[in-house]
Amino acid sequence: MSAVAPETTTTGLREGAFGNAVALSCRECGHRIDLGPHYACPECFGPLEVAYDFPAVTREEIEAGPRNIWRYKALLPVPTDIEQSPNTEPGFTRLLKADNLARELGIDTLWVKDDSTNPTNSFKDRVVACALSAARELGATVFACPSTGNLANAVAAAGARAGIKTVVFIPSNLEQPKQVNSAIFTSNLVAVDGNYDDVNKLAQEIAAEEDGWAFVNVNVRPFYAEGSKTLGFEIAEQLGWRLPDQVVIPVASGSQLTKVDKAFQELIKLGLVEEKPYKIYGAQATGCNPVATAFKAGVDAIRPVKPDTIAKSLAIGNPADGIYVLDSARRSGGAVEEVTDDEIREAIVLLARTEGIFTETAGGTTTAVLKKLVETGQLDPTLETVIINTGHGLKTLDAVSGAVGPAATIAPSYDAFAETGIGQA
Amino acid sequence: MSAVAPETTTTGLREGAFGNAVALSCRECGHRIDLGPHYACPECFGPLEVAYDFPAVTREEIEAGPRNIWRYKALLPVPTDIEQSPNTEPGFTRLLKADNLARELGIDTLWVKDDSTNPTNSFKDRVVACALSAARELGATVFACPSTGNLANAVAAAGARAGIKTVVFIPSNLEQPKQVNSAIFTSNLVAVDGNYDDVNKLAQEIAAEEDGWAFVNVNVRPFYAEGSKTLGFEIAEQLGWRLPDQVVIPVASGSQLTKVDKAFQELIKLGLVEEKPYKIYGAQATGCNPVATAFKAGVDAIRPVKPDTIAKSLAIGNPADGIYVLDSARRSGGAVEEVTDDEIREAIVLLARTEGIFTETAGGTTTAVLKKLVETGQLDPTLETVIINTGHGLKTLDAVSGAVGPAATIAPSYDAFAETGIGQA
Repeated sequence: MSAVAPETTTTGLREGAFGNAVALSCRECGHRIDLGPHYACPECFGPLEVAYDFPAVTREEIEAGPRNIWRYKALLPVPTDIEQSPNTEPGFTRLLKADNLARELGIDTLWVKDDSTNPTNSFKDRVVACALSAARELGATVFACPSTGNLANAVAAAGARAGIKTVVFIPSNLEQPKQVNSAIFTSNLVAVDGNYDDVNKLAQEIAAEEDGWAFVNVNVRPFYAEGSKTLGFEIAEQLGWRLPDQVVIPVASGSQLTKVDKAFQELIKLGLVEEKPYKIYGAQATGCNPVATAFKAGVDAIRPVKPDTIAKSLAIGNPADGIYVLDSARRSGGAVEEVTDDEIREAIVLLARTEGIFTETAGGTTTAVLKKLVETGQLDPTLETVIINTGHGLKTLDAVSGAVGPAATIAPSYDAFAETGIGQA
Repeated sequence: MSAVAPETTTTGLREGAFGNAVALSCRECGHRIDLGPHYACPECFGPLEVAYDFPAVTREEIEAGPRNIWRYKALLPVPTDIEQSPNTEPGFTRLLKADNLARELGIDTLWVKDDSTNPTNSFKDRVVACALSAARELGATVFACPSTGNLANAVAAAGARAGIKTVVFIPSNLEQPKQVNSAIFTSNLVAVDGNYDDVNKLAQEIAAEEDGWAFVNVNVRPFYAEGSKTLGFEIAEQLGWRLPDQVVIPVASGSQLTKVDKAFQELIKLGLVEEKPYKIYGAQATGCNPVATAFKAGVDAIRPVKPDTIAKSLAIGNPADGIYVLDSARRSGGAVEEVTDDEIREAIVLLARTEGIFTETAGGTTTAVLKKLVETGQLDPTLETVIINTGHGLKTLDAVSGAVGPAATIAPSYDAFAETGIGQA
C-alpha cells in the first residue's frame, strides 16, 4: 500500500500536526512507528492505533471548548487549531434520558446517546472529521472511501465543506435514494459493478497505485478510528463527568465499541472521571453475528460469515476489531448478543414510540439487544445504562415501511373521524 | 372554536405555567386577554401573540443553561422547570461559517444556521416543543396537527417522548416515505381523502367539537409560534452576542420571519445585544409567491395564490403572517424575493457541494434567493449575512434525484477506474 503524496512523509509534517499523538502503536506486538499514513504494523501486520503523550487536561478546558467534538481535541490526533479548518462540526449530540423506554423494558435508569442528529445523520461524521484532519496534515489531495451508506454521506459532505476533492465508491446496485444522498455532495460518485467486497478491493488497489489519496477507512484508518472516542467522552461529560455502569454499542467492524472503551480508560487515567467498573455490551444482527457467536462459544477466533440482515450498516462479515470487542466485553463483564431482523424492526418502532427517536436498523439492533440482555439476565436493570443510536431511520425507511402506516383512511368530515373511534381516550 | 378541556381555563393554571408571559395581545388592535388556548382577538379577530413582562436577563444566565432552546426559557411562554418535562430537546443547532458558498456568490461574510440537525430534522421541533409545553400546562389530553410533512414528524415525535396521545392528520395521497416518517412515532396517523386544505378544515372542525385537543397550529398557535424566536436568539448568541447585518429567511405562513425579527428586538430591549440596524429578507418560490408579489407591487394586500412548486413546505397560498413579513422587510430595508423551481434545485446542489449541507426545497429556496438578492443588488455583499436552513434534504429527495448521480459506472478494476479520468487532478 502506497502512502499519500511524497510531501506527506512524516518528516514533512508541521509542528503539532497530530496534537498530543506521538506514534502509531501496534495493538498486537506493541511496536511503535512514526505517525503517518499507515495502518498495519511493519513487524507483525497487526492493526496500528494512535498513541499519545497527554498533558494535564481539565474539565474546565474541555467545557470552554466548542460545542462539537473539537472540545476534546487534546485527546485526539488533531492540531490545536483544528476548529479553524472548515469541517462539518459534528458531535455533542443529545444524551436523552429515556424514561419511557426504560419503563417498557423494566430498567431503572436509561439514556440514549443520539447520533442521528449529526451533520449527515450518523456517527460517521465524527470519524470522518478526524480522518479529514489527518488527510489535510499529510498533504493528501483526494479524500475517498468505499461505502454503501453512512460513510459515503459523511465523506462526501466533509470533503465538500473542506474544499478537498472527494471520490466515493459504491456498488452500482445501490438504491437510488442512497446514491442521491452522496451524489448531492460530490461530482465524483463512482458506481462499481460488483458487491461491497468488490468495491472495497478496488479502493485498496487505487490506494496502492495512486499518490495523494487518503482513503478514510484504509490508509488513514488509525486517525479515523480515534473519532469514535468522542462518543465515550461526551457520554461521560453529559452525565456530569462520570461513567455509566453499562453501555450497549452496535458492532460492525467493532471499532466504535473498542474506542468507547478506550475513551473511558483515558478519562480515568487523566483524572477527568472517577475510576469505576463499567460493563461493555456489543450488539449484532443474527444475520451477521460473527462476534456474538464467538462470545457465546467462549472462543477467541472469529469465523467470518456472509451477511444477510436488514442491518446493512452492521453487515461486516469479517470484522477487523472483532477480537478486541470480545476482549472489552469479557474483561468488563459485559456480553455480545444478537437479534433477528424481526426483533430489529420491532425495536425501531419501540424506540420511536417511546422516545421520539427514529433510528436506522443499527439502532434498532442495539435497542433490541438491550431488551434481550435484560430478559436474559445478562444486563442488570438496576444499574445506569446507556445505549448508542448511531444513525437515522430516514436512511433505512424500507426496513419499517411495511410495519407502520395510517390507522385509518377517512372522508374529510368530522363524522367520518368520529366513527374511527380514534378520538376516544 | 372550543378551548381545551374545562380544567384548563386560565384560572386553573398553575403558578408560572407560562413563565414571564403575561397575556395574549392582538397584533392588530392591541387588545389583551388572559393567557389560554386562544388564537383570535375577541374584539377584532386579529391574530393573538404572546406578551411578556421580562425581568432582567443576563448572557451568563443564558449561557449556563442547557444546550437546547430551553437556555432561552426566560424569553419563552414556558415554565421555569420546562427542561424537567420530557421533550425532544431541540435547538442550539450549528451556525456554520459558509466561506465556500460566500466565495461562490461574491459575499464577504456568510453564515448558515442549520436546523436540519434538529431532532426530527427541521425547525418545527422548536415550535412544537413550545406548543407541547402549552398543551401540557393547559391540561390537553390530545396533541394534534394537520400537516403534509415536517410538522407531522415533529408533533408525532414530541408527543411520543412526552407520553401524550398524538393524532396526526395527512392527505391520503401523501407519498409513502412521508407517511412512514410520522407513522413510526404514532399509532394515530389519520389519512384523509382530500388535499391539504381539506385536512386543515377537518382539523378546525375537530378542534371545535372536541374538548382537550391541542392542535399545535390552531388553538395553541400563539405559544407555538414563539418557538421560532429561538432561531434569532441562537444566531445572536452564536455570533458572540451581536446581530448580523442581513438575514434571509424562507416564508411559508411568514411566522418564522416575523418571530426572528421579534427575537432581535427583544435582545436589544433586554440589553443582551447592542442596538444596530439589520435587514430582513424573505424567500419564496415563484410557484407560491403571494408575499413576494405584494412586496414588489408595493401594496399591503396579499392576494392568495394556488401553490404549484416543489417547495411544498413553503406552499401556503394564503399566508397568515404575510402582512407582517411585508412590514419587517420594508421597515428594515430588506426585501421579499422569489425563485423558480429550477433555481431551487440548483441551489440545493450548490449548498451541498460548497458546505456539505443537504437541505430540503425550503433551504434551496432561501439559498437561491440569497444568490438572486446579490445579483440584483438588493443585498449588500460586503455586510455580514445569515441564511436559515429550515429542513433536511432527506425529506425531499425527489426534488434532486434527477439532478445528481454517479459520474461513471465501471467494472471493479483499477484500469476501468483509470479510464474514467476521475483520478486526475
